Amino acid sequence: MSARAHLGRRVWAFPDGDLPVPGDSEPHGHESLVLLNPNRAAAEVRLTVYFPGRAPERDLRVVVEAERVRCMRLDRPVGEEGFRIPYGQYALLVESQVPIIAQIGRMDVQQANLAYYTVMGFPVDGENGT
Amino acid sequence: MSARAHLGRRVWAFPDGDLPVPGDSEPHGHESLVLLNPNRAAAEVRLTVYFPGRAPERDLRVVVEAERVRCMRLDRPVGEEGFRIPYGQYALLVESQVPIIAQIGRMDVQQANLAYYTVMGFPVDGENGT
Amino acid sequence: MSARAHLGRRVWAFPDGDLPVPGDSEPHGHESLVLLNPNRAAAEVRLTVYFPGRAPERDLRVVVEAERVRCMRLDRPVGEEGFRIPYGQYALLVESQVPIIAQIGRMDVQQANLAYYTVMGFPVDGENGT
Amino acid sequence: MSARAHLGRRVWAFPDGDLPVPGDSEPHGHESLVLLNPNRAAAEVRLTVYFPGRAPERDLRVVVEAERVRCMRLDRPVGEEGFRIPYGQYALLVESQVPIIAQIGRMDVQQANLAYYTVMGFPVDGENGT
Repeated sequence: MSARAHLGRRVWAFPDGDLPVPGDSEPHGHESLVLLNPNRAAAEVRLTVYFPGRAPERDLRVVVEAERVRCMRLDRPVGEEGFRIPYGQYALLVESQVPIIAQIGRMDVQQANLAYYTVMGFPVDGENGT
Repeated sequence: MSARAHLGRRVWAFPDGDLPVPGDSEPHGHESLVLLNPNRAAAEVRLTVYFPGRAPERDLRVVVEAERVRCMRLDRPVGEEGFRIPYGQYALLVESQVPIIAQIGRMDVQQANLAYYTVMGFPVDGENGT
Repeated sequence: MSARAHLGRRVWAFPDGDLPVPGDSEPHGHESLVLLNPNRAAAEVRLTVYFPGRAPERDLRVVVEAERVRCMRLDRPVGEEGFRIPYGQYALLVESQVPIIAQIGRMDVQQANLAYYTVMGFPVDGENGT
Repeated sequence: MSARAHLGRRVWAFPDGDLPVPGDSEPHGHESLVLLNPNRAAAEVRLTVYFPGRAPERDLRVVVEAERVRCMRLDRPVGEEGFRIPYGQYALLVESQVPIIAQIGRMDVQQANLAYYTVMGFPVDGENGT
């Protein structure tokens, strides 16, 4: 379509993270962060993981190439730093100078039949003087 | 990343609340309110619970420490006032002077396999002259 | 908390409606529209139902009292006009002079275990010269 | 209600697409894109499909008539070009000169009981100089 500038937002928040138990067989329970970069420059993304009872883990680095989508399992080492998110409540902040669009999905297999859901991130940039 | 001001919004609305029956075993059916405070000051939050047929319950107090996420079960006493949300339809308004991000999850176990979903709150501050 | 003006939005859109079969026992499959009116005046709401292959059904009237939440089953007669939404794809537009917040939930019981989800409406007022 | 201009947005993003296996019987697992056009002109829509490891597929054409809703199965040939989305991660960008509202639903039947969810698209027009 018509030429356009940058599509997306620079800061995304996901308050409710909680890794489900993986279970014994496929499909394994998990959460995935999915980042779409529809722009013409690679996006260098920084993740911050928040917890209920300790200081956040900052600056986990992920790259999303130009005009690509990238899906990251959150139950595996995250970012170039290979940070392991522990079980229990956590939250995620996603920051990128190149605008992106961010979504999280969770699949739960703790019972005989899976349950899952998805949620678009909440874009917090461009507000309150950010 | 770069220094930033306050991330998040001050007023969040959740129209569709309805506590599921807890069931007899883990995981118990429930709804949870999850609040992320990515900012450097503690957030003093006030909750209002709305009902179909009576006046709202106001000013239930909850604190979310700076740079922490907090998950609250809504089937347990809510806020410092220990308000018990009754079964049936209710809605929630979340207000905080320090901006936060708010999300609700519901887990339903009334049948053999759980079903659940999540929803980001709708941010209503900064609109219509608020 | 502090006094505030009107909270919410005036026009909400729900593209993906499709009444599930009710099934033979409780809980029956259904979709529900939930409207929160946190303001001090009653909200006179108008619903428009869109279809894939015929003209929309307009001006179905619903009232949500001040500071109340109202849940409407969409598989039952809708509005004061008692319109029956037929099975199959439909969409919903919700309009109100008094701002409100709108959410839809769907429960599906066509198999042994229920599946359901929720979605916040998309607020379309205040954009594109509305 | 009162006359209004154009309702909706011109560009919508869906980062997390992944066609579920269809399964052997009804209801077959699938993803559907649902577009509501509440305006008085037909919407000529262009879809772009993004992938993790190759260039995007662009300019798939779809029309949504004025004041109609249209549901498209994403496991069937998409657009007038009849593009087949392959299994695996993909993302979708939806562009239309006439504003619309876009939502995606997924139904998964890989186990005995279905699981499904829905997500409103993220509207990316009107931001960052688009």
